[in-house]
Amino acid sequence: MDNVRDEGRYRIFQDIRRKRGAFPEAIWYPDGTTQHDIVVWCSNDYLGQGQNACVIEAVKSAVDATGTGSGGTRNISGTTHYHVQLERELASLHDKDSALLFTSGYVSNEATLSVMSQILPGLIIYSDALNHASMIAGVRGARCEKRIFRHNDVAHLRELLAASDPNAPKLIAFESVYSMDADVAPINAICDLADTYNALTYCDEVHAVGMYGPGGSGLCGALGLMNRIDIIQGTLAKAYGMIGGYIAADAVITDAVRSLASGFIFTTSIPPSTAAGALRSVRYLKQKDDVRIAHQERAEALKARFRSAGLPFIDGPTHIVPLLIGDPVRCKAVSDFLIEERGLYVQPINYPTVPKGTERLRFTPSPFHTEVMMDELMDALNESWKTFDLPRVSVAA
Amino acid sequence: MDNVRDEGRYRIFQDIRRKRGAFPEAIWYPDGTTQHDIVVWCSNDYLGQGQNACVIEAVKSAVDATGTGSGGTRNISGTTHYHVQLERELASLHDKDSALLFTSGYVSNEATLSVMSQILPGLIIYSDALNHASMIAGVRGARCEKRIFRHNDVAHLRELLAASDPNAPKLIAFESVYSMDADVAPINAICDLADTYNALTYCDEVHAVGMYGPGGSGLCGALGLMNRIDIIQGTLAKAYGMIGGYIAADAVITDAVRSLASGFIFTTSIPPSTAAGALRSVRYLKQKDDVRIAHQERAEALKARFRSAGLPFIDGPTHIVPLLIGDPVRCKAVSDFLIEERGLYVQPINYPTVPKGTERLRFTPSPFHTEVMMDELMDALNESWKTFDLPRVSVAA
Ligand SMILES: Cc1ncc(COP(=O)(O)O)c(C=O)c1O
Ligand SMILES: Cc1ncc(COP(=O)(O)O)c(C=O)c1O
Repeated sequence: MDNVRDEGRYRIFQDIRRKRGAFPEAIWYPDGTTQHDIVVWCSNDYLGQGQNACVIEAVKSAVDATGTGSGGTRNISGTTHYHVQLERELASLHDKDSALLFTSGYVSNEATLSVMSQILPGLIIYSDALNHASMIAGVRGARCEKRIFRHNDVAHLRELLAASDPNAPKLIAFESVYSMDADVAPINAICDLADTYNALTYCDEVHAVGMYGPGGSGLCGALGLMNRIDIIQGTLAKAYGMIGGYIAADAVITDAVRSLASGFIFTTSIPPSTAAGALRSVRYLKQKDDVRIAHQERAEALKARFRSAGLPFIDGPTHIVPLLIGDPVRCKAVSDFLIEERGLYVQPINYPTVPKGTERLRFTPSPFHTEVMMDELMDALNESWKTFDLPRVSVAA
Repeated sequence: MDNVRDEGRYRIFQDIRRKRGAFPEAIWYPDGTTQHDIVVWCSNDYLGQGQNACVIEAVKSAVDATGTGSGGTRNISGTTHYHVQLERELASLHDKDSALLFTSGYVSNEATLSVMSQILPGLIIYSDALNHASMIAGVRGARCEKRIFRHNDVAHLRELLAASDPNAPKLIAFESVYSMDADVAPINAICDLADTYNALTYCDEVHAVGMYGPGGSGLCGALGLMNRIDIIQGTLAKAYGMIGGYIAADAVITDAVRSLASGFIFTTSIPPSTAAGALRSVRYLKQKDDVRIAHQERAEALKARFRSAGLPFIDGPTHIVPLLIGDPVRCKAVSDFLIEERGLYVQPINYPTVPKGTERLRFTPSPFHTEVMMDELMDALNESWKTFDLPRVSVAA
């Protein structure tokens, strides 16, 4: 712990409370009692669905109808009508036979990948070097052969596939949207390789479901590639504004995972009201292309401002806007200045979430972040850049 | 999957919906649409807290105040005032410095045990042979030396401790209440061994918190041993009627786990309303010794009936009443008869949840299971015992 402190990456969790109906506004409790109004710039409730009146209503009416917790594992009284309906809806969202709910996106990755080697003895997993911790935990848990390919490097992946036993079962695991670098996978090329080398594909769409593709089906949906992905994994905790995770796949796969995965079997299922809220949220976003359009527009607006101010952000094709600071101490100092002096909350992102030397502030503009909020943010960032003597990039003419 | 089916242990999840305010009554959807009234006999909402009006109110008012999901990991905007208050309350419940919330009891066991070997290099973990799958996952994840001691066998544990390097850091991991066999650990003797051999103690109180001890602090609390347990782990998903898990321990331990455990760091935190409901539930049960007394009385009443009918149940000192069938096919057949013919829901418990040959029906009578319900249950069980030609034990005079 002393090391962590010395390196300036000891984590202070900001104690906040969001204001229902006023997203992205919230209250900050710096010392547990004092209250300050803030604007949240780092929420993964990307579309403000956690504040959507119809989602809130669905949660409340399910609580009224059925109570709070599910009271059991899926097998022991914890499968409710809400769970069954939600799994059906998620399967249809991704145009698959079936879907399987887990208590979180983390658990869905870990539990599913962990048992793939039991389902396919001799399996080799090909895993992108920047895959999320939950996929790494799953690959580790699988205790099978693995190959790590350089991030988004299709040539390297091909090399690794070509060098393997052609008869070994294979699975390529990757994300559609990488949330810390705001970049996307070469999904089409990965699917081509999967065809050539007879590999299964596993795609984490945690940062894409609800936000991309027809009906919010994700980036694979947007690219018309859903049917080439064998296992699509997603979360209900980000764009859908609830909690929980899932996979969607052929029935033979979900049935095997359901029957074998420890992290699925031996844990209380999500509350019925959580499933009800998620169901409402998924159905709502299925209809709302305008929310997705507004979301992209707001992200572009923020990037345009960063660009013209010469702020060193990673200019990717997604809704996430990472602003590089490159040092944990200054990263935290800027974040502290923003929240303490300006009421703007953006958490410093340090190692181990990102590699050392790439510490950053990660902005997630939503459809509810207004021009006035962006004015205030730019003013505060310009001042921090002066105060902490941070470098700007040259602005293209 | 064919093996699983052939052995008669393919799992059918019953699709149910509980009726708020009428616990343990619920609706069963055998085919997705038809509805039948049932009485649930296998819920782990042991005290019916998921239906408690004050818990429901706490959830609803938090949803009204702040929305649904937390929108972030604990570090990135997902620490809310509700989380902070709940962690404080849980620390005080167990008379510890601090507590740490996780998305489930499963994740709290897996994530915590996984990093203990990083916190204490050279660690040896001593794990009870019947520990829950989530602890097994954690011990596996720790990738350190481990010794499995025979279930509740203090002599075997002593042997293993005595045979180890006296200077190696050690941790003994066990449960207070074993939920499938309804027995309890020799906690005092384990603590004595921990003192002698300078080992840390880790106790899973998932099936005890809320139900035993002063204020519901668990079995260690009931025995006055809380201060001899270094890490107490619990769930919010059973007696507290919500979802989520936690550990309570010295601040130096929770701080290390908070900073290192992947399953804690890289996942969206529980919704603020879940924390609010759990907080209300913990505080409610702190005051309610009468609920705990009624719970034990109902369990004793059911055991007395099983005893005088010569039904082969495991007669343990806890609130759980396992009725042995010893064969997956007949276990499922009895369960099917009970729900289909009599509207009584008790899930068959098969391998891998229990060892093959010990298949069982596991009853969890709550304070809300009435004498009339017990009459109906006994009638249905007596009929099943005849129909399926199951053995009775001789009834003591
Ligand atoms: C790529 C990725 N996968 C999975 C997860 C885990 O999802 P959840 O928060 O639902 O556990 C996250 C973030 O939390 C993530 O960024
Ligand atoms: C002993 C034990 N520990 C942990 C768990 C997991 O707790 P949760 O349901 O909160 O994940 C369970 C059951 O689910 C259990 O029986």
